[in-house]
Amino acid sequence: AAGQNLGERDFVEEASRIVEQAKELQDAAASLISRTTREEDSLRQKAKSLDSFVQGLRSAARKSKLDPNQAERLEEELYKASYVLSEGDAAAFLPSKSHGGFLRMFLGPVNVRANRKDVQLKVKEEYNSFRDRTAYLFLLFPSVLLGLRSWMWDGCLPALPVQLYQAWLLYLYTGLALRENILRANGSDIRPWWIRHHYCAMAMALISLTWEIEREPNCSQKQRGVQLFLNWAIMQGVAMLLQNRYQRQRLYTRIALGKARRMDVVWGETAGVDGQLLLLFPVLFILQGFEAYVGVLLLKTAFLGVVSEWQVVTCGILLIIMAVGNFANTVQTLVTKSRV
Amino acid sequence: AAGQNLGERDFVEEASRIVEQAKELQDAAASLISRTTREEDSLRQKAKSLDSFVQGLRSAARKSKLDPNQAERLEEELYKASYVLSEGDAAAFLPSKSHGGFLRMFLGPVNVRANRKDVQLKVKEEYNSFRDRTAYLFLLFPSVLLGLRSWMWDGCLPALPVQLYQAWLLYLYTGLALRENILRANGSDIRPWWIRHHYCAMAMALISLTWEIEREPNCSQKQRGVQLFLNWAIMQGVAMLLQNRYQRQRLYTRIALGKARRMDVVWGETAGVDGQLLLLFPVLFILQGFEAYVGVLLLKTAFLGVVSEWQVVTCGILLIIMAVGNFANTVQTLVTKSRV
Ligand SMILES: CC(C)(COP(=O)(O)OP(=O)(O)OC[C@H]1O[C@@H](n2cnc3c(N)ncnc32)[C@H](O)[C@@H]1OP(=O)(O)O)[C@@H](O)C(=O)NCCC(=O)NCCS
Ligand SMILES: CC(C)(COP(=O)(O)OP(=O)(O)OC[C@H]1O[C@@H](n2cnc3c(N)ncnc32)[C@H](O)[C@@H]1OP(=O)(O)O)[C@@H](O)C(=O)NCCC(=O)NCCS
Repeated sequence: AAGQNLGERDFVEEASRIVEQAKELQDAAASLISRTTREEDSLRQKAKSLDSFVQGLRSAARKSKLDPNQAERLEEELYKASYVLSEGDAAAFLPSKSHGGFLRMFLGPVNVRANRKDVQLKVKEEYNSFRDRTAYLFLLFPSVLLGLRSWMWDGCLPALPVQLYQAWLLYLYTGLALRENILRANGSDIRPWWIRHHYCAMAMALISLTWEIEREPNCSQKQRGVQLFLNWAIMQGVAMLLQNRYQRQRLYTRIALGKARRMDVVWGETAGVDGQLLLLFPVLFILQGFEAYVGVLLLKTAFLGVVSEWQVVTCGILLIIMAVGNFANTVQTLVTKSRV
Repeated sequence: AAGQNLGERDFVEEASRIVEQAKELQDAAASLISRTTREEDSLRQKAKSLDSFVQGLRSAARKSKLDPNQAERLEEELYKASYVLSEGDAAAFLPSKSHGGFLRMFLGPVNVRANRKDVQLKVKEEYNSFRDRTAYLFLLFPSVLLGLRSWMWDGCLPALPVQLYQAWLLYLYTGLALRENILRANGSDIRPWWIRHHYCAMAMALISLTWEIEREPNCSQKQRGVQLFLNWAIMQGVAMLLQNRYQRQRLYTRIALGKARRMDVVWGETAGVDGQLLLLFPVLFILQGFEAYVGVLLLKTAFLGVVSEWQVVTCGILLIIMAVGNFANTVQTLVTKSRV
């Protein structure tokens, strides 16, 4: 009985000791958090003021007339400063782009910003590999559907497989839009249009889900829209693969530069990928033309009365908007790059 | 010319100074990040070992026979320890539940865990208010549809408004599932079933989107499934409102306890909400019964051949699975709570 008593006392005592240790841990955690918060705030302050110094100096220099030599030296220094600020660990303390309504709509007010540059790059890398995986599916899915249509289904697509494909598209575009918003919050310079383009694509996938597919008489005529859409999807898969190869190359260059800390290699970022751009841009333009063409064909089908559902009209309009927006933004990117 | 020269030299010099400052900031940021990471790792280590101490002690005590008095004291101490660990700032350093495949599928490998307890509570509060807002829409949307059906649409629901409602449901359930996964990553004890339940609901909303709604002859008979579904949605709105009131009350109690740091108030967490539970549970059971009933009716409609689409069968099965799972988990919660 004495031994047992001792055992019991031991348990309670041990527990009290754990409570004490837990309280100590709590105090340590509280002090670490408040200390870190304070230090981070001060770094954030400094980063913000440096950032606005750079901008102020640039616009002041633009107003006063510098001779070309001086201007170039100034520009180089300023580029160095922004490079150090945005590519190193200090980047985590730059004022962040607002999270945007889309993320808040789905996730609430949660913080998706990574504090460390290497984590940010990992998120970007995973985004690229997500795109890679989906690009192959983008090729595979519609090819299989179109193949089975002519070999097994006598020219008529059944509803279920097409709807599965459309549901997958909806998931894919939602995932891309969420991830791109997260990248933006982590400091990516992605143009807002590429994200908005995915909102349009989400809307289109959602609408196409409600679109009735099988109608026995003349189905091959009535399914013209779906077929065009699938053809376009295959081409988009090819473009995505090319685009991904190019973007991955760019990212690797950046990571390598960051690792080597060769902050002085100023314009080296796109080194080695210019050749790929020469191939990519024509493909993109052809694709965008085809996108608009599919949109117009959909509108035509609707107005000739073959299929008169509102879904066809809306999808046609969305495709045309997307094509025009993509074209305009690709050209703007081209102009910016060639100015450099 | 001398003045201009001076001005030029100034700009470049200023820029070089900014570069220097940027480099200093970079160094400060790098050292802060590495220091914090080290300290956080050590706290994480301590939190983990304390956490496993508590568990080890509890299971060791269960094996040896303690007298009731000692056992109660031990239990109290252990509860205090886990309370300090999980409700204070130390909670941020407890081993986190894995993010789960759903979040990774939509967001990639991004960290959604808040480092500070007050931020975690804010996320939870926003989740509650999101549920609140949607509960009202949950009441409003189907009521309006059913009302218009009998006043304006002569007993036949048109497709577009119903599909808009279904798209909203899809967004809602996706948002809830994402937010609940985020809460879980932030240490919430939410049962996995409530999240899985929302995956089922997402599937149902998606499937119902592909479900053809309007068929002119006998539409009121063929739309029986949709009508039942809308009725059930209204009841679910009522239950959500009750449930939200109860959960909010619980959260406020916790926040108040946390602020007052009265860690010794051990079982006070559910104080003042037991009365609400007495009302909530019967309502939940009735609702779950009705959910299963709607499922069975859907299956009956499908097997009697009135509507023979696969969507009707699948939705029926999903509703029955959800009803059974909800019932089982509500009962388990009830048992756990009454054991306390
Ligand atoms: C034109 C294009 C190749 C330029 O790519 P780029 O050289 O990376 O462009 P920028 O230098 O302006 O990129 C700035 C940032 O935006 C990102 N970005 C550019 N285009 C993007 C796109 N379409 N989707 C996602 N991110 C993109 C880049 O990765 C970069 O991110 P970072 O700041 O984190 O490094 C690219 O925008 C593109 O492929 N657009 C065409 C898309 C299209 O039309 N698709 C559909 C065809 S129907
Ligand atoms: C039964 C019920 C009221 C119990 O709620 P509770 O007292 O909060 O339950 P617990 O104490 O087990 O909660 C543990 C955690 O899970 C959360 N939680 C419990 N049920 C939840 C639910 N249905 N959805 C989201 N979160 C829930 C709680 O907020 C708590 O979170 P925390 O750890 O961050 O504080 C609640 O689970 C419920 O309403 N379930 C029924 C849902 C239902 O059947 N709906 C459809 C009807 S057809």
